[in-house]
Amino acid sequence: MQLGMIGLGRMGGNIVRRLTRKGHQCVGVDQNAAAIKALTGGHVEGSAGLAELVKKLAKPRAVWVMLPAGEITETAVTQLGELLERGDTIIDGGNAFYKDDIRRAKALKARGIHYIDCGTSGGVWGLDRGYCLMIGGDKEAVERLDPIFDTLAPGAGDIEKTPDRRGRDPRVERGYMYCGPSGSGRFVKMVHNGIEYGLMQAYAEGFNILRGAASGDVPEDHRFELNLPDIAEVWRRGSVIGSWLLDLTAMALAEDPKLARYSGFVEDSGEGRWTIQAAIEEAVPAEVLSAALYARFRSREKESFSDKLLSAMRNKFGGHVEPKAGQ
Amino acid sequence: MQLGMIGLGRMGGNIVRRLTRKGHQCVGVDQNAAAIKALTGGHVEGSAGLAELVKKLAKPRAVWVMLPAGEITETAVTQLGELLERGDTIIDGGNAFYKDDIRRAKALKARGIHYIDCGTSGGVWGLDRGYCLMIGGDKEAVERLDPIFDTLAPGAGDIEKTPDRRGRDPRVERGYMYCGPSGSGRFVKMVHNGIEYGLMQAYAEGFNILRGAASGDVPEDHRFELNLPDIAEVWRRGSVIGSWLLDLTAMALAEDPKLARYSGFVEDSGEGRWTIQAAIEEAVPAEVLSAALYARFRSREKESFSDKLLSAMRNKFGGHVEPKAGQ
Amino acid sequence: MQLGMIGLGRMGGNIVRRLTRKGHQCVGVDQNAAAIKALTGGHVEGSAGLAELVKKLAKPRAVWVMLPAGEITETAVTQLGELLERGDTIIDGGNAFYKDDIRRAKALKARGIHYIDCGTSGGVWGLDRGYCLMIGGDKEAVERLDPIFDTLAPGAGDIEKTPDRRGRDPRVERGYMYCGPSGSGRFVKMVHNGIEYGLMQAYAEGFNILRGAASGDVPEDHRFELNLPDIAEVWRRGSVIGSWLLDLTAMALAEDPKLARYSGFVEDSGEGRWTIQAAIEEAVPAEVLSAALYARFRSREKESFSDKLLSAMRNKFGGHVEPKAGQ
Amino acid sequence: MQLGMIGLGRMGGNIVRRLTRKGHQCVGVDQNAAAIKALTGGHVEGSAGLAELVKKLAKPRAVWVMLPAGEITETAVTQLGELLERGDTIIDGGNAFYKDDIRRAKALKARGIHYIDCGTSGGVWGLDRGYCLMIGGDKEAVERLDPIFDTLAPGAGDIEKTPDRRGRDPRVERGYMYCGPSGSGRFVKMVHNGIEYGLMQAYAEGFNILRGAASGDVPEDHRFELNLPDIAEVWRRGSVIGSWLLDLTAMALAEDPKLARYSGFVEDSGEGRWTIQAAIEEAVPAEVLSAALYARFRSREKESFSDKLLSAMRNKFGGHVEPKAGQ
Repeated sequence: MQLGMIGLGRMGGNIVRRLTRKGHQCVGVDQNAAAIKALTGGHVEGSAGLAELVKKLAKPRAVWVMLPAGEITETAVTQLGELLERGDTIIDGGNAFYKDDIRRAKALKARGIHYIDCGTSGGVWGLDRGYCLMIGGDKEAVERLDPIFDTLAPGAGDIEKTPDRRGRDPRVERGYMYCGPSGSGRFVKMVHNGIEYGLMQAYAEGFNILRGAASGDVPEDHRFELNLPDIAEVWRRGSVIGSWLLDLTAMALAEDPKLARYSGFVEDSGEGRWTIQAAIEEAVPAEVLSAALYARFRSREKESFSDKLLSAMRNKFGGHVEPKAGQ
Repeated sequence: MQLGMIGLGRMGGNIVRRLTRKGHQCVGVDQNAAAIKALTGGHVEGSAGLAELVKKLAKPRAVWVMLPAGEITETAVTQLGELLERGDTIIDGGNAFYKDDIRRAKALKARGIHYIDCGTSGGVWGLDRGYCLMIGGDKEAVERLDPIFDTLAPGAGDIEKTPDRRGRDPRVERGYMYCGPSGSGRFVKMVHNGIEYGLMQAYAEGFNILRGAASGDVPEDHRFELNLPDIAEVWRRGSVIGSWLLDLTAMALAEDPKLARYSGFVEDSGEGRWTIQAAIEEAVPAEVLSAALYARFRSREKESFSDKLLSAMRNKFGGHVEPKAGQ
Repeated sequence: MQLGMIGLGRMGGNIVRRLTRKGHQCVGVDQNAAAIKALTGGHVEGSAGLAELVKKLAKPRAVWVMLPAGEITETAVTQLGELLERGDTIIDGGNAFYKDDIRRAKALKARGIHYIDCGTSGGVWGLDRGYCLMIGGDKEAVERLDPIFDTLAPGAGDIEKTPDRRGRDPRVERGYMYCGPSGSGRFVKMVHNGIEYGLMQAYAEGFNILRGAASGDVPEDHRFELNLPDIAEVWRRGSVIGSWLLDLTAMALAEDPKLARYSGFVEDSGEGRWTIQAAIEEAVPAEVLSAALYARFRSREKESFSDKLLSAMRNKFGGHVEPKAGQ
Repeated sequence: MQLGMIGLGRMGGNIVRRLTRKGHQCVGVDQNAAAIKALTGGHVEGSAGLAELVKKLAKPRAVWVMLPAGEITETAVTQLGELLERGDTIIDGGNAFYKDDIRRAKALKARGIHYIDCGTSGGVWGLDRGYCLMIGGDKEAVERLDPIFDTLAPGAGDIEKTPDRRGRDPRVERGYMYCGPSGSGRFVKMVHNGIEYGLMQAYAEGFNILRGAASGDVPEDHRFELNLPDIAEVWRRGSVIGSWLLDLTAMALAEDPKLARYSGFVEDSGEGRWTIQAAIEEAVPAEVLSAALYARFRSREKESFSDKLLSAMRNKFGGHVEPKAGQ
């Protein structure tokens, strides 16, 4: 099939590569001319802007937007909405907020244009491993683009089959899923990332406790110097906590057990926050997912006003004075 | 090699099976005669009690204890300590507290007996997948029993190799690890289980939020009926949060999307608690691992006094009256 | 001064009472005729509806809205906006969302009408103790109504003066505060309630641990049957954790140490949720305030899907079966 | 009455002062000769060591130990146990672990010596406000020392009486309480401090959110510069969250709204940790109290290995690179 791609960065570029390797045709555009140039040739054509890109596509057109969440995506979708025609489809594969998807889909539907929200997981590994796709929007539009989704997804591979799936959608076992109406694909991807934060934090706390076993706070008779790279590695095999995130943890620790190149300033890309907002809207507890998000917020503070206030209270009621740094 | 096995339940029985399938010899004992009978034959010999078991083993003997944590393990280890001789080895593969391991190892060492703490992960799947082993104790005793550990571990299998592991212990890549002095193997297994609780809770909260998207608390324009079994399945492929626990989640949800056979009374086996105690001793934060533990405690309460007190305070300051059940 | 009051329930009625006791004039309206009747007489006049209420007030008018958050407040403010004239003032004293205040103030300003958001704490005790007022909006409009706010506030009373307050606004020491532009009063009140949840949960957990000291999970040699009503009482005197919420806790426990009349179904009125949303928007951690909110969500669940999923996973990896109820 | 006091620091010294101001006689000892000298005269006599102190007391003797928790208290109690005689009493007023109290009481009882654990709250304010006392041990020994406890406690003061207390111990309303057998007084004090951590953290998070309202992360149309000292002050009056800790917060913020003299390195004195251990032993959730403890642990970390591991994972799956400091 033919697909337009707006944004040829780490994610968009690799999506184009994976599609064209398997015979699809892509027309790409990017602010960065070098990014276009790097991809052009074979099944990929560059274009100078949205208007030109739209002209180069055959009807009904399909254009995938793969840009950072926020203003820039909003603008691209709005402009596309004006350039495209009845029957065309926009796919947003970035990390948008699902309520924005619902709003956009509604506005575009009024003009006969389909809007698909496609939560896309896989990171820099997706090019080879394939992308896990969580798709929301008009079912018909999604069905028409099935060859695209099927190519991007990892496929069944040699992952063991889950029993009791007779009668269920077989495409899910190839790694892509139609989740439901507009916004639902992104909602599922959002919760996916919320869980991701929780999993990451669970490992991070665990390894921190392993490392802390060597700390001076622990009495000598049960103080241990543990080999973190080996522990991550051994857990990859036969243990209950094996996972892809653990594979990556093992890589990072094998590279450097002290992780010295990282300062521990941990960003978040929005989905963790939105997951908490969804939990609050639904009135369901989300202790672990919140704690994971807050750990990231805390990681960015050099000085915490909250902590200062605790020190101040302790000083006021007990005369406690903070120890000097390093004590 | 020859190994004595005390406790032929779900874990002990399967360990014996895995060992003898690959040619090792086992002498087993269990309170339950049927459990012994079920295994006896081929490379397995039964015995009527600890004393007989010890007699049937050639020196230097190795006896694996695989019993529920607590009194029963303590008693078995104490009795074994009296029956065994200088140069023999006890392996405890259960879920003990690492400080108990340190104490036991010390006491047995005084009599020339080796004590190995062997954290054993793998659950009911270990028979076929192999067990992930985290081993602490005298290095020499551990080395001597290498054939046992090597057989129990999963082996390298087709799991992708972690880069940058040149010069590191290759046995780790076969799924077993010498962690260090007495207690360290169990300490590593304890943190493993602490992490396990955290991972499980992250998934549980995430799926709960997905399910809650259909709740009446959510405005209709972004209320979704999501297909939980399919979501678990699709995440197994190419997503960042793929894991063995997710595989199991997919199985459970495919079996019954409502999980109706479970009431949600969630037990804990001690390691989650000890992990928090270790974190507190080390003075490192463990927000997620604690929250995961507390969720289990809360799951067992039909009535929470804590919640009642909140209701009482609200009533006292604001005149708020609890809604009638079902509202 | 003269004030219109819309909503004569628990809060609105008492505000009218407190104002008129001290000589102010009020015109009230309520859906419930009995509520109007109960107050009318002396300095209070009833009215049949918003239009009549507005007519009965002298210009520049001041109308206080004291209704449940949401639709009903929105409607009342909108209608008032149409009935009032340039120079008049609306005060919303309920539990609205501060972003709604900002929106309303803007819309009303275009018509020359002042809108004041007045966070009001004090519950059913406010009539006698006075109300703590956190006020946002046009400074001039707030200044003009100073006699109203001053009367409603508790006054300096015999609360010990905080040192180092020279040069600071003395009205604050009488219990009301001009917080800043529109929305800021309600924002401060929102965080106030967020803190309130956190404080309540801290006490609730603490008393739960005291009560748990008698539980069978605790070894007999340090099992205690503690007298909760006495503990709450003794902490009111000289301890670091004395507070008004503790006073109320002591009342509730003295009334019934088992709190048997409460089921522990704990509602939330929105501010706790909005506080978390504000924290997330600011990217600051709010672990305790979130946990307090989630405990309330959890208190309303008879069955937790999240817990069921944990049980299901445990069953899948370890063959663990849930104990029968009561075990 | 006559009382020996071991430890004349901030707490012990003030206890002696409060007792002797009201006519009791004290014999004190301290490592620091200046501390003894500062108190001696009037009703206070110094002594050169434990042996001399014991000699100066009339039988049955009562000796209060007010030393830092740990080794030093243990040593003092052990030595006292050897110097005292049948019928004498040791009171430990420090922050010990309640299981140590149980052990000590048992050992001393064998020698006919009473041991009283007396949780003592009040900080540097206790001299004037009085101390809230939570007392465990032999009831008879506690009764005999009633004049001491009654003098130290704040008395009924002008705190409003709690209704429904007819038939309950009136001493509780004067600020001291017999909690039960050995260890129970300290257990109650421990939970008291656990709650204290939770309350402090709730305020700290709340003020942090108020402060964050001015942050650049918040869109300009609802960004607020809030006056923190005034907010703390206004909440002291008529609000639901008034408390002594809030009084102290108001003091600290009035002194300096930026709290610039504090770095936010927050220590813990053990009780918060023990409270969590008790909760875990009882299998009751303690989310808020744990989070409060962990916030303190985190406050002491300049670099968090846990955060580094998150950064490392993000780098491995998404190619995410940490922003440079200050971004």
